[in-house]
Amino acid sequence: MEQKIPYKIYLSEDEIPTAWYNLRADMKKKPAPLLNPATLKPLTAEELSAVFCSELVAQELDEDTAFVAIPEEIRNFYKMYRPSPVVRAYCLEKKLGTPAEIYYKFEGNNTSGSHKLNSAIAQAYYAKKQGLIGVTTETGAGQWGTALSMASAYFGLDCKVFMVKCSYEQKPFRREVMRTYGATVTPSPSNTTEIGRKILADFPGTTGSLGCAISEAVEVATHTEGYRYVLGSVLNQVLLHQSVIGLEAKKALDKYGVKPDIIIGCAGGGSNLGGLIAPFMGEKLRGEADYRIIAVEPASCPSFTRGKYAFDFCDTGKICPLAKMYTLGSGFIPSASHAGGLRFHGMCPTLSELYDQKMMEAVAVEQSSVFEAAEMFARVEGILPAPESSHAIRVAIDEALKCKETGEKKKILFGLTGTGYFDLVAYEKYNNGEMGDYIPTDEDIQKGWATMPKVDL
Amino acid sequence: MEQKIPYKIYLSEDEIPTAWYNLRADMKKKPAPLLNPATLKPLTAEELSAVFCSELVAQELDEDTAFVAIPEEIRNFYKMYRPSPVVRAYCLEKKLGTPAEIYYKFEGNNTSGSHKLNSAIAQAYYAKKQGLIGVTTETGAGQWGTALSMASAYFGLDCKVFMVKCSYEQKPFRREVMRTYGATVTPSPSNTTEIGRKILADFPGTTGSLGCAISEAVEVATHTEGYRYVLGSVLNQVLLHQSVIGLEAKKALDKYGVKPDIIIGCAGGGSNLGGLIAPFMGEKLRGEADYRIIAVEPASCPSFTRGKYAFDFCDTGKICPLAKMYTLGSGFIPSASHAGGLRFHGMCPTLSELYDQKMMEAVAVEQSSVFEAAEMFARVEGILPAPESSHAIRVAIDEALKCKETGEKKKILFGLTGTGYFDLVAYEKYNNGEMGDYIPTDEDIQKGWATMPKVDL
Repeated sequence: MEQKIPYKIYLSEDEIPTAWYNLRADMKKKPAPLLNPATLKPLTAEELSAVFCSELVAQELDEDTAFVAIPEEIRNFYKMYRPSPVVRAYCLEKKLGTPAEIYYKFEGNNTSGSHKLNSAIAQAYYAKKQGLIGVTTETGAGQWGTALSMASAYFGLDCKVFMVKCSYEQKPFRREVMRTYGATVTPSPSNTTEIGRKILADFPGTTGSLGCAISEAVEVATHTEGYRYVLGSVLNQVLLHQSVIGLEAKKALDKYGVKPDIIIGCAGGGSNLGGLIAPFMGEKLRGEADYRIIAVEPASCPSFTRGKYAFDFCDTGKICPLAKMYTLGSGFIPSASHAGGLRFHGMCPTLSELYDQKMMEAVAVEQSSVFEAAEMFARVEGILPAPESSHAIRVAIDEALKCKETGEKKKILFGLTGTGYFDLVAYEKYNNGEMGDYIPTDEDIQKGWATMPKVDL
Repeated sequence: MEQKIPYKIYLSEDEIPTAWYNLRADMKKKPAPLLNPATLKPLTAEELSAVFCSELVAQELDEDTAFVAIPEEIRNFYKMYRPSPVVRAYCLEKKLGTPAEIYYKFEGNNTSGSHKLNSAIAQAYYAKKQGLIGVTTETGAGQWGTALSMASAYFGLDCKVFMVKCSYEQKPFRREVMRTYGATVTPSPSNTTEIGRKILADFPGTTGSLGCAISEAVEVATHTEGYRYVLGSVLNQVLLHQSVIGLEAKKALDKYGVKPDIIIGCAGGGSNLGGLIAPFMGEKLRGEADYRIIAVEPASCPSFTRGKYAFDFCDTGKICPLAKMYTLGSGFIPSASHAGGLRFHGMCPTLSELYDQKMMEAVAVEQSSVFEAAEMFARVEGILPAPESSHAIRVAIDEALKCKETGEKKKILFGLTGTGYFDLVAYEKYNNGEMGDYIPTDEDIQKGWATMPKVDL
């Protein structure tokens, strides 16, 4: 007899994965390496070690090892908020009247409010293990900064966060969460770094940018004894750590014999999507199973659907390595009116390569339709979703409605990366009917591309 | 061999209680009934039914039935966020270096952010079942209003929330969560009610009070066809619904053979504490087991520790029934500088009676020490606690530290009622070193008592 699927499938703590899965190991054609922007040669471990912890550099460069053991200290921390549940969206299915089965892997039940903590704790652990004093990073809206603050507090590391000045002022709540966890939060640009002082002199009154905050964080990390810089998305190491999402999700679904037909995730830098799909994509790469995999991006920042696959700078400040990725150009600036994250001009190289190999699809959605989906989901499933996650909800609903038309009983899995408790300004706009859609013109994208490195690679 | 206790003890969905437990059934001396303030006679079902749903009135008055079946519709909703975990605070124990075992029942993993949803969904269900159109209520900071909005959205009920005007303006985020769930949120006092217009005329520019918001909500409920008023604490029916907390907690601990020596909960109106202790207190009342039970209240609003046990109004507006309870007087106003909830001048009659019978203890704590405990807890346990819940954390830590002195391996259970994501203004004050303590003088309390009904009962 078929076992009734509960609302929430929880694994036991013993079932938390003991190893992360490195998707690249199963890719025949590997993603392109990061390049030194000065030499245009692949970055060496030595070069990377000036910026990142040694063990993270090793993870970054290792494209052959399929499984990397998760240290016990990290697993113990995971036990505080993991395994996260796979939820059967019975109420949403009923609301839609769809024959499809909808499942979501919910990563929001921790104080950072998202999946970011999965990698933050790993990066903090390796920093501590290397005997470092602290870490630096940048944050925009503050999700990643919060996660890193929590992880640093746990291991007793100092944590210096450069927060884009306009967010620092307009989003004081996440700032205070970080401070409660003992982090130093500095509005960027600041007077505490050379690059910050230069930017303040050149652009008095600027409210900052993520690119500028990255530059300050890297400067402090590379100029302060005992510090390294950490990053919350895009990198291979981050995708590795985030594979815990997909490994747990697959194990939970396997228990009930559920094989998803469609797997959906929102995509900004790619950390959540890369983590969620990891073991499924692994099976697909090895020819063991097939899944339809859909990346959802905002129509206002459509890297996959309208970008080009080329080497580009990862940051607007052009101090970071070159990465081969789907990109709108490092000079592309999504509309400030776009709510929530997913504002990165590029996409992580691993997912870019998989997209190029047609192993996954991508779709761009407009934010007013995303908030419509968010509102419906909140009302029937009881969780107020983050705007980022709601991109995946939108497409999951659309696919479920297609099943209603066709009568197909497809099984849909999507990633609910986090909660929207710190995004109420965006919800207020939506509630007041003031939310618009912002789609870049072809000219906007041409302008972004014009900022790409003028090298033939 | 003893089974290793996991970080989080989750029950399965099948283990969600099928019946709530009515503590009063096991009390030899029952709590005093609510009185009609005009006649000073116990309120009848008929009188109560003008304000509350019929089935809730029955629950309110029934002091004999020990177990009340939980309707399937409510259990299905519970499945979306319950069973909530009992967490073994391994990291906090380690940080404190205590031989004590610390456990907490965590009720914050739902969008309302607290245990309030347990009763909101029950009250919305009975309203729907009675064929009502909608419900009205008041809210201060917005926790209860959020829970009721979510519950109303689920059952398709209209929900009208009167939100104290200063909170409406200063805490826009919870307001927007309520609006996202489809509730109408009106700043109180408002022009939409007779009492609101009167108050606005008498006190132009007033920023409102909970008492005034209650009056408006009750007026709308009793003057609008198809509406009833609902309340989130103090009442017997609310304690009944909240017993799900304690029933789950006990079942989870029983699985691992853990019998708590000390049970700790914060106490404002008493809904969380009454729910958490229900089955344990039941055993104590029946002489089957003994537990030390501690209510924790803020030193700024010390109903148990400095109040008197007498009949008093439940609201500052003096329109609600008289209840026999530990009270500081309905005219007592806790300092506006006190952060978070637990500002009610009285205490629910059931807990008041149990306290009077010396079945439980009470302790008052100052808010700066509460936030110290909150910060420590957040850093090691990874959850940013609500200020209310942090009162219980404070005393749990104190008791664990006593065990460190004596070497006793006591088992401590406390209720972590919710998260502090909407209380960051208070955390900011604490982070900035601007948090003070506010202890009423004896004169303040005498003044509060002077507002009590002048009747000899």
